[in-house]
Amino acid sequence: MLNTSDTQLPPFDLVLFGGTGDLSLRKLLPALYFRHHEAQLPKQGRIIAVARSDLSRQQFIEKMEAAAQEHIKPEEFHRDTWGTFCERVNYLRVDITQQEDYEKLSEVLGDHPDRVRVFYLSTAPSLFKRICQGVNEAGLVSEKSRVALEKPLGRDLESALEINDELAEVFDEKQIYRIDHYLGKETVQNLMALRFGNALFEPLWRREHVRDIQITIAESLGLEGRAGYYDQIGALRDMVQNHLLQLLVILTMEPPISIDPDAIRDEKIKVLRALKPIAGKDVIKSTVRGQYKEGVLDGKSVVAYRNADGVPPSSSTETYVAIKAEIDSWRWKGVPFFLRTGKSMPEKRTEIIINFRSVPHSIFEMPDSTNRLIIRLQPEEIIKLQIFAKGRGDAMRLLPVNLDLDFNQAFKKRQMIAYERLLSDMIRGNQTLFNHRDEVAAAWKWIDPIIAGWEAEGGTPHQYAAGTWGPAAASALIARDGCVWAEENAHVE
Amino acid sequence: MLNTSDTQLPPFDLVLFGGTGDLSLRKLLPALYFRHHEAQLPKQGRIIAVARSDLSRQQFIEKMEAAAQEHIKPEEFHRDTWGTFCERVNYLRVDITQQEDYEKLSEVLGDHPDRVRVFYLSTAPSLFKRICQGVNEAGLVSEKSRVALEKPLGRDLESALEINDELAEVFDEKQIYRIDHYLGKETVQNLMALRFGNALFEPLWRREHVRDIQITIAESLGLEGRAGYYDQIGALRDMVQNHLLQLLVILTMEPPISIDPDAIRDEKIKVLRALKPIAGKDVIKSTVRGQYKEGVLDGKSVVAYRNADGVPPSSSTETYVAIKAEIDSWRWKGVPFFLRTGKSMPEKRTEIIINFRSVPHSIFEMPDSTNRLIIRLQPEEIIKLQIFAKGRGDAMRLLPVNLDLDFNQAFKKRQMIAYERLLSDMIRGNQTLFNHRDEVAAAWKWIDPIIAGWEAEGGTPHQYAAGTWGPAAASALIARDGCVWAEENAHVE
Repeated sequence: MLNTSDTQLPPFDLVLFGGTGDLSLRKLLPALYFRHHEAQLPKQGRIIAVARSDLSRQQFIEKMEAAAQEHIKPEEFHRDTWGTFCERVNYLRVDITQQEDYEKLSEVLGDHPDRVRVFYLSTAPSLFKRICQGVNEAGLVSEKSRVALEKPLGRDLESALEINDELAEVFDEKQIYRIDHYLGKETVQNLMALRFGNALFEPLWRREHVRDIQITIAESLGLEGRAGYYDQIGALRDMVQNHLLQLLVILTMEPPISIDPDAIRDEKIKVLRALKPIAGKDVIKSTVRGQYKEGVLDGKSVVAYRNADGVPPSSSTETYVAIKAEIDSWRWKGVPFFLRTGKSMPEKRTEIIINFRSVPHSIFEMPDSTNRLIIRLQPEEIIKLQIFAKGRGDAMRLLPVNLDLDFNQAFKKRQMIAYERLLSDMIRGNQTLFNHRDEVAAAWKWIDPIIAGWEAEGGTPHQYAAGTWGPAAASALIARDGCVWAEENAHVE
Repeated sequence: MLNTSDTQLPPFDLVLFGGTGDLSLRKLLPALYFRHHEAQLPKQGRIIAVARSDLSRQQFIEKMEAAAQEHIKPEEFHRDTWGTFCERVNYLRVDITQQEDYEKLSEVLGDHPDRVRVFYLSTAPSLFKRICQGVNEAGLVSEKSRVALEKPLGRDLESALEINDELAEVFDEKQIYRIDHYLGKETVQNLMALRFGNALFEPLWRREHVRDIQITIAESLGLEGRAGYYDQIGALRDMVQNHLLQLLVILTMEPPISIDPDAIRDEKIKVLRALKPIAGKDVIKSTVRGQYKEGVLDGKSVVAYRNADGVPPSSSTETYVAIKAEIDSWRWKGVPFFLRTGKSMPEKRTEIIINFRSVPHSIFEMPDSTNRLIIRLQPEEIIKLQIFAKGRGDAMRLLPVNLDLDFNQAFKKRQMIAYERLLSDMIRGNQTLFNHRDEVAAAWKWIDPIIAGWEAEGGTPHQYAAGTWGPAAASALIARDGCVWAEENAHVE
């Protein structure tokens, strides 16, 4: 069950492998601090950061504080609760390849059979297997133990299965928390609330009333120094296999019978398995790869992807993908889902747009009668329902107007960052917002043939100027169904 | 067809019987001025005010200007266009009972067979017959002539039929413009735009999804010196038979095949005829009569209705009505429509509230899951769609939030007053927003048995304090269906 109260978490020891890494310092520790500040962490709640660096506890805490002051807004950083938060934090130098170091960890953890123990693997996936073996051999794994992992979970179905099999040697599926941090966002949980907490939308949420759905995850950032990693991965594996498909699935699944994790995951897996395969020649027809060339963004010139530090000049890695997906189910048959994500886009924006069918018989003169539900998840959380109303004056002219909801105005409370919820949920043992191995597998099963199709095609991605909404081919892709991407449509803003 | 452009009206002569009356000076002439200011009146467009008073044209224009300055906002009163507007206006002293005076009118009108000629009867209904005869005998009625009438069109079915028969002796039904000024309000026309210009609402607009609908026309005013008239009429005849039923009908009719007047009127009549009769003992079960006693409104004390000037101390005239109406059709069977109207209410408000059914199976903990569409027509024109969203923070708590649309913000343009549209439409010959005799008859046919039931019951209406939302019996009426009036519900504001 999703938590329905703000009650305290149970006693826990959280072991953060990769404790000095970026994710740990920028996201995980600040998230834990917020939960501490809001008095949700129990008295017996410890955080043991683990890494290779030779740091004293004091040195780590100084490092942690420097990062916190950079990534927590000054008005949200409270000196007094920060002080008590630091008392929870320990640091341990560990060489992952040395079994004796796991024994040191064992000593630090001590004998607390009552405590939840979370191993958070914020490391390269290549180290997962060794860490699992290490903690297991040191006798650190009990029924109360959990392991949490970050993407990438493999680069295709085969490697994902391999990682999952390795984990399964030590941990039961019920103990494995595969993170897709998009699921931790309050905005994404709100999608579920919107669909299943309101009787109003469900009757409309189907092929009879929906013409097409667009999901966009646009990043204005480029490589941010991650060239070595990114060039091996590309946008399809980095964003579509996980985040975009998760949004699609939450948006389209059947109503679950309850909010039990299994009930929800079952519905999610059902949609993933119902995704119409895109393989062979269909890959070229239903997908568009893009790669950004030089351009201008926010008034600054951006270097072409191929000329970025660490990228081979002949790289054919895609920094943009657009896909026309379909779901072979009674509810969605024939409705096109246009998915896209890219780097160096004009703005950071995560947005779902549901275009409803036109009125079947128009008695008014109106050029267009598409009602549109816009759910923007980032950067602001807003919902807009675009309808048509009579413009003022003598003429019976229908004009588009918006019913608006801005969550920042509706709820004065601070929006939780994704990792606050995910860390809380893994400590309390709630798997709802984490991916089951079958989900990961089903997603890769759909992604693999697309990659194969691209490899068979060869060639290079379509070029698009940095600071634009992607290659023209992506507009052509969706135009074949008589649609346009939302930002090209004057009605949206 | 409803007009779809702001083009000029055809040449016309508008004869305003009762030209020195309140309606004429406060509403009709200012409305015509606005149309003149917006350049919609043709060069050959004349207004001939007609009344018993012995005034010169100049004196009438002075009277008209004094009223205009009182009823038009200073920023909307433009001296230059006012001057040219006055050039259109003439005044003629007419004694309605003297046939020779119609000959004088004939002279003023002259021979302009190309012009539309509108006789606007802003007089007591008892004079309608004589005026129709008068203009007819003077040879003033041609195919291009029209007659416009204000409520009350009778006080029951019989008297309404009588008036309509008298009109029919001179005018064809196509020439008769029965005014319900609510239909002239842009907000009411927007109801049609909302329903039939958007594919989104229609699937939800039916018994399967709607639990109940509430329509409120609340007036904060009391008698305003109209005791002699009002005490003979009461709230049911004054507000329900016309305005409230018109709102109900526009809200519930089937989609018309076009916006031709006949197509729309046919659908409206169909609903009126489908109203489940309330007769005999059902009258006491399904209706509540109220009469205000002394109270406080806006900090001022209000005298009880029975103690108002001109009201007999034993009056049993109702100043408030609440009715549970039902529509016997496939679309609406079993949905209760709660209609109410009253005087001396806490505020002036015309509002339609559609309460949708709850989610059939709730997976979230939520005390209430009623989605609600609020369409407020007066005093502001707003639409609110109340939905539930996840509140911020760790808990999965659903809270009510509103999707909002404020037409004053969406459309900067001035809202037309009802009579601007109605006068324009009658000049251009568009009957869509006027009542057909069959509509009037169907409405009275439903109203008459309610009046009969009250008369059979005898007794007096329930008392309610001025400045409150009506008698407790009205809450009991609707509570029997498990409902509450919207203002008693904390979610609404």
